[in-house]
Amino acid sequence: MPNIITLSREFGSGGRELGKRLADELGFAYYDREIITEIAEQTGMNENYIEHTIENEVVNFKWHPLTFAKTFPQVSAISNTTVHILSLQHNIVREIAAKGNCVIVGRAADSVLSSYNPYNIFVYADDESKLKRCRARASDDERSQDLSDAKLLKQIKQIDRNRAEYHDIISSKKWGDKSAYNICVNTTGIEIKSIVPVLAELCKIWFER
Amino acid sequence: MPNIITLSREFGSGGRELGKRLADELGFAYYDREIITEIAEQTGMNENYIEHTIENEVVNFKWHPLTFAKTFPQVSAISNTTVHILSLQHNIVREIAAKGNCVIVGRAADSVLSSYNPYNIFVYADDESKLKRCRARASDDERSQDLSDAKLLKQIKQIDRNRAEYHDIISSKKWGDKSAYNICVNTTGIEIKSIVPVLAELCKIWFER
Repeated sequence: MPNIITLSREFGSGGRELGKRLADELGFAYYDREIITEIAEQTGMNENYIEHTIENEVVNFKWHPLTFAKTFPQVSAISNTTVHILSLQHNIVREIAAKGNCVIVGRAADSVLSSYNPYNIFVYADDESKLKRCRARASDDERSQDLSDAKLLKQIKQIDRNRAEYHDIISSKKWGDKSAYNICVNTTGIEIKSIVPVLAELCKIWFER
Repeated sequence: MPNIITLSREFGSGGRELGKRLADELGFAYYDREIITEIAEQTGMNENYIEHTIENEVVNFKWHPLTFAKTFPQVSAISNTTVHILSLQHNIVREIAAKGNCVIVGRAADSVLSSYNPYNIFVYADDESKLKRCRARASDDERSQDLSDAKLLKQIKQIDRNRAEYHDIISSKKWGDKSAYNICVNTTGIEIKSIVPVLAELCKIWFER
């Protein structure tokens, strides 16, 4: 059975970098945005549309209380397109896992692939280092530079709430609750690449039990 | 400045074993019950009494709501002895840290020693493996063997609640909330000793930044 590492992360914690480096260190395939690309290829839909649908529509569906739904039924009904995209994403995640050893970022893969007994990693950081990382990453995006810390942090937290909502629609375990993961890594104050070889060792110990 | 590792743990997660092995691996001093022994030596009080006071009286103090306190003032008032023991424990934790590199288990050391910028570890496990570990550890304690899983689990959870209450009296961060720790390690399904060298590497990376 392939060895699967799933990586969930707070926005701005460096989780994506950690996942990519970990995959390289172990010689595993790496999947993140590649899953969206695959859905786009299978459906002919635009990648941005797919991403927007997954990140917003699914989540909004859950957010609207029933009383609100009665007034505005159109926003509360999850569309057939969304269901189709979600179902495709599930299948693609399963297909990817069946192909061989890999690191999968997000997509509630910890839950979707639980039968593989994956090594589940959660990556987080404190607000200050998330802000710093976001600003460094968006150094040529003037819109982000114009935002105050408070506004940027609000956006970061909203993205995390969306991730949590998406995960919790699919999984019985709560996103970010440590019980769902084998290890939770705080990247505050450390250089991501410095800890990758060590985390790779922990993954190997898990797979070689 | 000495390198300090603090280790907080759910009861039955193997945190104590992990702490001891980690200290051995790194050549650090190890403090757990040793702190109680030190308080006993400094006060002449019985170790069991000290332990009971820390684990129960401090916690019970917080648990009684004010309305209850009005009826039974004697149980709600934290005694001078308790305050004295707590204060001694704080001082001893600080003295220990000043002596040199060490691993300190519990005692809200992550908060008390925050000025040392310690490497804070939280160790946890799922219910099944905690039960298994407790039963294995208490193999010659017939009272534990007689307990049903449900009753034993209730006791385990009560001990953790006491630890959380004790920690949260002292710290502004919540016990077990991952933001308070550099790493949270789930020991479910792994042999503690297999991950100790790897965790020691993570500690070294933290101290050598």
